[in-house]
Amino acid sequence: MKNFSIVKSRRLRSTPYTERIESHGVTSYTVYNHMLLPATFESLEADYNHLKKFVQVWDVAAERQVEITGKDSSKLVQLMTCRDLSQSKIGKCYYAPLVDHEGYLVNDPIINKLAEDKWWLSIADSDVIFFAKGLAAGNKFNVEITEPNVNILAIQGPLSDDLMAKIFGDEIRQLKFFNFRYFIFKSKKYFIARSGWSKQSGFEIYVEDDKAGQELYDNLFKIGAEFNVRAGCPNLIERIESALLSYGNDFDNKDNPFEANFDKFINLDSEVNFLGKEKLKQIKKDGISRKLMGVKINYDKIDMHGEKSLKDDNNNIIGFVRSAAYSPTFKKVIGIAMINKSFWNKKDEFKIEIDGKKITGTVCDLPFI
Amino acid sequence: MKNFSIVKSRRLRSTPYTERIESHGVTSYTVYNHMLLPATFESLEADYNHLKKFVQVWDVAAERQVEITGKDSSKLVQLMTCRDLSQSKIGKCYYAPLVDHEGYLVNDPIINKLAEDKWWLSIADSDVIFFAKGLAAGNKFNVEITEPNVNILAIQGPLSDDLMAKIFGDEIRQLKFFNFRYFIFKSKKYFIARSGWSKQSGFEIYVEDDKAGQELYDNLFKIGAEFNVRAGCPNLIERIESALLSYGNDFDNKDNPFEANFDKFINLDSEVNFLGKEKLKQIKKDGISRKLMGVKINYDKIDMHGEKSLKDDNNNIIGFVRSAAYSPTFKKVIGIAMINKSFWNKKDEFKIEIDGKKITGTVCDLPFI
Repeated sequence: MKNFSIVKSRRLRSTPYTERIESHGVTSYTVYNHMLLPATFESLEADYNHLKKFVQVWDVAAERQVEITGKDSSKLVQLMTCRDLSQSKIGKCYYAPLVDHEGYLVNDPIINKLAEDKWWLSIADSDVIFFAKGLAAGNKFNVEITEPNVNILAIQGPLSDDLMAKIFGDEIRQLKFFNFRYFIFKSKKYFIARSGWSKQSGFEIYVEDDKAGQELYDNLFKIGAEFNVRAGCPNLIERIESALLSYGNDFDNKDNPFEANFDKFINLDSEVNFLGKEKLKQIKKDGISRKLMGVKINYDKIDMHGEKSLKDDNNNIIGFVRSAAYSPTFKKVIGIAMINKSFWNKKDEFKIEIDGKKITGTVCDLPFI
Repeated sequence: MKNFSIVKSRRLRSTPYTERIESHGVTSYTVYNHMLLPATFESLEADYNHLKKFVQVWDVAAERQVEITGKDSSKLVQLMTCRDLSQSKIGKCYYAPLVDHEGYLVNDPIINKLAEDKWWLSIADSDVIFFAKGLAAGNKFNVEITEPNVNILAIQGPLSDDLMAKIFGDEIRQLKFFNFRYFIFKSKKYFIARSGWSKQSGFEIYVEDDKAGQELYDNLFKIGAEFNVRAGCPNLIERIESALLSYGNDFDNKDNPFEANFDKFINLDSEVNFLGKEKLKQIKKDGISRKLMGVKINYDKIDMHGEKSLKDDNNNIIGFVRSAAYSPTFKKVIGIAMINKSFWNKKDEFKIEIDGKKITGTVCDLPFI
């Protein structure tokens, strides 16, 4: 595929780490929440191999925070998600699909509870701040909604515990998955969660002070040399293999949370009040006619710039693949696809057109096995 | 500046015209409303020179529509903007700042009134759909809010009337600025407005049928050969010279509409109900302490990837330039900047750092004279 350059501007803003990742060899960007998000360094496959073996530092400042504070903040946060947050605890992170009044998905943030009346929604790529502001104004909620200056550095990979312990002390090894706490380095305090957009284990450091974050970035490389630390970024191959969904790629505002397999985060029997609850009850009753599944495609490359249709032997569309990449592990192209019900249990092969050729593939459950 | 490539995906979706503009020589993209928007073809300056002399076809599908229909649609649209729409007419386009309940800007769409209960908000780069959905849910409005499959082709440049008349007939010459009507080509109907993101005159064709739009694209080049038609895009130099503001670049959700010089679209004395009305009254009473102005900088190039500070002789910050480009007309860098009140009427030079050098410049009114 031909390369096109990205034009930077204030509207596609850089992060506090952009200069550093550029000197560390970033080669391509995507745009996420109106901000630059690195997409490759050496190559998708080289980045993937390194991530699975060592440890990487990621500039994921584009995972912006929507801060909601005030008397009605819990009410507003709960109104936006079909996940029951009534038992939520301070210091914990909650993966939570956001749903509109029609039952369609708006985003799938990690919701961090900082206090009973203070929340950070660490968002995927859509302007949740305007959804929250619209709801707050319409409901006359007593809340403040802002985008704080928080720029996340993620530390990902099997050696991430070793690197983080060397910097923040051994107690960080005890931090549980989807919990956060403050840790100190050189007398600066950092909000750190055990989380991240890979399944290679790791942490996300919610940096609130640009300069401290830049110094931390430099120290991660100085101190982490022995772990073969490298600059990296969310890796398309790894995230598909791990079935980590991407809003805008795998699902969007035309899909409902059942279609995206979010069943365990849809608490229709709870007492809590959230948007689209009645719609979702109706959808559950009626059943869905399509859902996200894995696909394995017998080919060695694929370029995605939209969804690609999958067809059966009679040339009927059976679904659309929405994200895909060649996996060196499966030695095939693997992808995440919205598949029609009639094909959920079929062992038949589908056909997909790549590079003008008809290629075959099969449907499988997520995550890939 | 080093070039970085953009990684395409379904999330940064292509348009129905992407293949065509790539065969017509697009070289760089920006991302706008989660969609590819071409940024340069030959070069900023070559594109600019052609635009000011001939006619260009632009893929501006990234100007997405938020469609609002239903009994309460007028109420919802009015609630979102400080411009009084009570006298608005079907067939007209209204440039209208959207404001949140704090009085901050959300977007600056062109609002097209298709019927008393049908509106298209042709939006700048923020997810207005979620603002509208939040407000509708909170106020229990009877409306439907969708993003229809509309992909705009803009025809811009001094020869645009000639090209459009040759395709759609001479009556299109009578279409007034910021009016729209349906016109026929090869028995297909197109919604066409006299509008566009340049001051070189032109039209925007709101294409509702992908295939028809692709055929129209091809015909514009075939039929338009005599006018030296070329593929183009919104041009950074031309839009700054014309003081056409860009949401996310020149202003954003931390600025109010007075600071962005939208005074004539802020109808505080009207009877209509809109968000932030009391806040805006207070701001008007108190006065603002900064506003958007032009800057002329004594240099021949500038790279923007955030805002750059402007300083006085005592090294105090007097403002920030937010968009800028070298203008072959002014033979200087010109830009749009948020300038502190103390410097509004100063004839003094400010200092700005470019390429590690201290460069001087002056403040001026917009548009540039």
